[in-house]
Amino acid sequence: MMSIIQVASHLTYQVESPASFIFTVAVAQNTHQTIQQEQLIINPLVPYEGFMSGEEANRSIRFALQPCTLTLDYTATIELSHTIHQPPQLDEVAYLNLPTDALPYLNPSRYCESDRLGRFAYKTFGHLPMGYARVSAICDWVFNHIDYVSGSTHGSSSACDVLVQGMGVCRDFAHLSIALCRALGIPARYVAGYAPELQPPDFHGFFEAYLGGNWYLFDATKLAPVGGFVRISAGRDAADTAFANIVGNVSLEKMEVSALSLTQNAPSPNSAVSTA
Amino acid sequence: MMSIIQVASHLTYQVESPASFIFTVAVAQNTHQTIQQEQLIINPLVPYEGFMSGEEANRSIRFALQPCTLTLDYTATIELSHTIHQPPQLDEVAYLNLPTDALPYLNPSRYCESDRLGRFAYKTFGHLPMGYARVSAICDWVFNHIDYVSGSTHGSSSACDVLVQGMGVCRDFAHLSIALCRALGIPARYVAGYAPELQPPDFHGFFEAYLGGNWYLFDATKLAPVGGFVRISAGRDAADTAFANIVGNVSLEKMEVSALSLTQNAPSPNSAVSTA
Amino acid sequence: MMSIIQVASHLTYQVESPASFIFTVAVAQNTHQTIQQEQLIINPLVPYEGFMSGEEANRSIRFALQPCTLTLDYTATIELSHTIHQPPQLDEVAYLNLPTDALPYLNPSRYCESDRLGRFAYKTFGHLPMGYARVSAICDWVFNHIDYVSGSTHGSSSACDVLVQGMGVCRDFAHLSIALCRALGIPARYVAGYAPELQPPDFHGFFEAYLGGNWYLFDATKLAPVGGFVRISAGRDAADTAFANIVGNVSLEKMEVSALSLTQNAPSPNSAVSTA
Amino acid sequence: MMSIIQVASHLTYQVESPASFIFTVAVAQNTHQTIQQEQLIINPLVPYEGFMSGEEANRSIRFALQPCTLTLDYTATIELSHTIHQPPQLDEVAYLNLPTDALPYLNPSRYCESDRLGRFAYKTFGHLPMGYARVSAICDWVFNHIDYVSGSTHGSSSACDVLVQGMGVCRDFAHLSIALCRALGIPARYVAGYAPELQPPDFHGFFEAYLGGNWYLFDATKLAPVGGFVRISAGRDAADTAFANIVGNVSLEKMEVSALSLTQNAPSPNSAVSTA
Repeated sequence: MMSIIQVASHLTYQVESPASFIFTVAVAQNTHQTIQQEQLIINPLVPYEGFMSGEEANRSIRFALQPCTLTLDYTATIELSHTIHQPPQLDEVAYLNLPTDALPYLNPSRYCESDRLGRFAYKTFGHLPMGYARVSAICDWVFNHIDYVSGSTHGSSSACDVLVQGMGVCRDFAHLSIALCRALGIPARYVAGYAPELQPPDFHGFFEAYLGGNWYLFDATKLAPVGGFVRISAGRDAADTAFANIVGNVSLEKMEVSALSLTQNAPSPNSAVSTA
Repeated sequence: MMSIIQVASHLTYQVESPASFIFTVAVAQNTHQTIQQEQLIINPLVPYEGFMSGEEANRSIRFALQPCTLTLDYTATIELSHTIHQPPQLDEVAYLNLPTDALPYLNPSRYCESDRLGRFAYKTFGHLPMGYARVSAICDWVFNHIDYVSGSTHGSSSACDVLVQGMGVCRDFAHLSIALCRALGIPARYVAGYAPELQPPDFHGFFEAYLGGNWYLFDATKLAPVGGFVRISAGRDAADTAFANIVGNVSLEKMEVSALSLTQNAPSPNSAVSTA
Repeated sequence: MMSIIQVASHLTYQVESPASFIFTVAVAQNTHQTIQQEQLIINPLVPYEGFMSGEEANRSIRFALQPCTLTLDYTATIELSHTIHQPPQLDEVAYLNLPTDALPYLNPSRYCESDRLGRFAYKTFGHLPMGYARVSAICDWVFNHIDYVSGSTHGSSSACDVLVQGMGVCRDFAHLSIALCRALGIPARYVAGYAPELQPPDFHGFFEAYLGGNWYLFDATKLAPVGGFVRISAGRDAADTAFANIVGNVSLEKMEVSALSLTQNAPSPNSAVSTA
Repeated sequence: MMSIIQVASHLTYQVESPASFIFTVAVAQNTHQTIQQEQLIINPLVPYEGFMSGEEANRSIRFALQPCTLTLDYTATIELSHTIHQPPQLDEVAYLNLPTDALPYLNPSRYCESDRLGRFAYKTFGHLPMGYARVSAICDWVFNHIDYVSGSTHGSSSACDVLVQGMGVCRDFAHLSIALCRALGIPARYVAGYAPELQPPDFHGFFEAYLGGNWYLFDATKLAPVGGFVRISAGRDAADTAFANIVGNVSLEKMEVSALSLTQNAPSPNSAVSTA
């Protein structure tokens, strides 16, 4: 199944001192995502270095600027090739059989303290059928127990904070879900991306779990259909996938993000969407 | 209804340097508890100051010692006058009508971060019938979601830690229950005491909630019947009710605690036991 | 030494649902503070209950309202009778000799985790001369290591959070100082009050330490002279001294606080100011 | 400069249920470390998979076992080729010039919350000369402010916990140092290894910072000379470098670790040791 997604992000910064930037707003290229058209305009004109960052080869750029007003405009058209699976066939993979590059996604990370949540995870989800259904149950549980409240958390909030406080935003929903998956032995990683139908439009944070030999998309916020999600970057948690890392005295003035699906044949809500 | 309880605690310390001690092991005196007989033997003989400590007038003693072996033997026989209430009549008391000396027990304390748990508490217990049934539901929830594991927590563990880690000991069960009550607007306080039928015998930690005009006993560990609990001390949390506070280089060598009910007419497990 | 201070607070709330209120904005009455004139106007007219709250008998009022616009105007003129001591005479009081009502102020509390900070406190301040000089050293250390940044913390931030993050507001400076004092065996309590010369004018949070037989005022923010501080309320930490506790759907619309010293003979910055 | 190090680890486990194991005890192979001889004996005989784990290609093995007594004996002789640099030449590398594979080591990780420690780091170390001297100053500060106390922390303790509590073991010293480096913009990573002269002998945890174009060894515990350290594994923090990851009911019965330097020409304590 295929769909065409148009995405865009427009960022404006006031650069008050000499500053260095790394931006990661371009969509990832992989077998799941084909870039049909893509444009990046940076004003002022500045030479930049493009590079692959992190374990998941996120597409980043790096440059430096003197004080100025910086605008960055990114637009792209992406063809998504969904591999849709029927959930019942998706088992969890035994520790012995996990691909070795999935193993780091069992480790606790800054915002996903799976080492602390083992008992909680087993008491809450240990008795459930394993596989896709269990990860779905985690998403349902997070959706039901955590309120989506804009501004309720901050950059230092972690999965345990969110569990205690009962509220958060998309990154918090993803962090808690990831931590619970890892605590149960299911590799899970954070994904930042564009999400058609997200209201209000913004960068989105969701996650992937490794099941039955592939990574599958999940989103405990249920704010938009995962079948339309376009990956920008992936990593252990939000610490690895910031859309901007800036050194210097710089303030964000304006941010506009959009994502539009040009096709209507979205997968049904109950389908598993593989990203590879 | 009345019952007779015999309690004892025997403590042995190695005092390695000049040291100061405050012990709070004697049972409280109130309308609920009448002391029939009581004996405290401290060896070596040392003059001590008896005083009432904290908001709940816990019976403490204070003294100083040079290096030695210290033994403290406390025994008492207490007549408990239970006021047994039928749970359905016990409503929560509106904020406007709470006795003013119950108000501090709505505040968050060191080990009961009710300020962080408000949303969690309302999402989990907000829809339940108010009053005794709701506090019972909190105890049941804590009992079902937290495992009693000796040594699983330490002196700095708080209600939020226990919620995340899913395990704890009696003080942790009490702290989490108290924090959830306070978050819902129900005054709750920590009680340290002697508990017949507790296995293995030890000092016990439980709590009281203010309902329908009185304080009622609760114990989320369900390790022993609350009808036989003898209060030593009460306070905001375990920080207020340590059986020993010691300044100096002193090590606990031996601790034996016992509690025995001499009467058999314990209240049924579903009765509410008022302590005043 | 005496001084006359005029204080005022004006609060406006939108009450969206039936709501209950406890306000604690009136100045405390004690040997240190004599109220010459005082006026409280609540609009709409509502009968209220005045009562003493908490261990320190803070002057609180309680009432309920239907949806409306609520304004509360408090003004008072206070005569402060400072007892000024020369710092060198102020020793720390041995554990055995502390007045028993000071003992709870050695316990850790919600925002002052002195139980965790013992080693840090001893490594940083253990070698310093004891007494007034040591508490002053704690204030200096907090002043030098923590930045005052409006909005940098939130209601759940504690002394340990502030130590790690290196910034906070007045309540955070007080909490960290209190926690360090308690960790060293010096009773310390939180005080909320009015502070002449504070810029911008606001309610202020500071603390008292028990030294040489009295409680002495300290303020690690160094934002205003302690000699002019007027106590509203005191307690274990900010959890005990909120100027407003509200149950219901109510939003603060406006808050104006002022404090003016009518006398010029403020004590010199290096004097110890006792509040009893 | 070269040195020859002999290392060994002997592990005995009781395997109570069918279990899966990943061990990472073999020394790393890189331009800095040449393996002259190496032997791994696992009893019972079991086929195992060798693989490179994590971003740093740690040498891991994976296998499964039925209930039994498992012993794992690893011995190796390594030739270390130190590159010794004079500290003054080692500058910090500007954000724009950092090699892109060093960038993930600026991100906060599970046990190194550099995102929380930015202000603390700048207030404490921001004014110091940059480069090797600043990382050395961090190590000195950690050494002076944190006590090495066996058993004082647990698997969930993080850099912020250690800072507050003022004590820890080798992994805690490394985590706090790493977090402070990252907060200052210096890439830093955790290294697990063998350490001659460590008393008592054990696996050791230390760290590397990226300076002047290379990774340099540091150890804030100062328990053994870094010039003799043999790397087993590296990663973001201890979560990435466990010597054993086990799924199943398995208990460690015995662990013996040794490391012996066969050469005497250790680098002087003040030299910078590069690992590449």
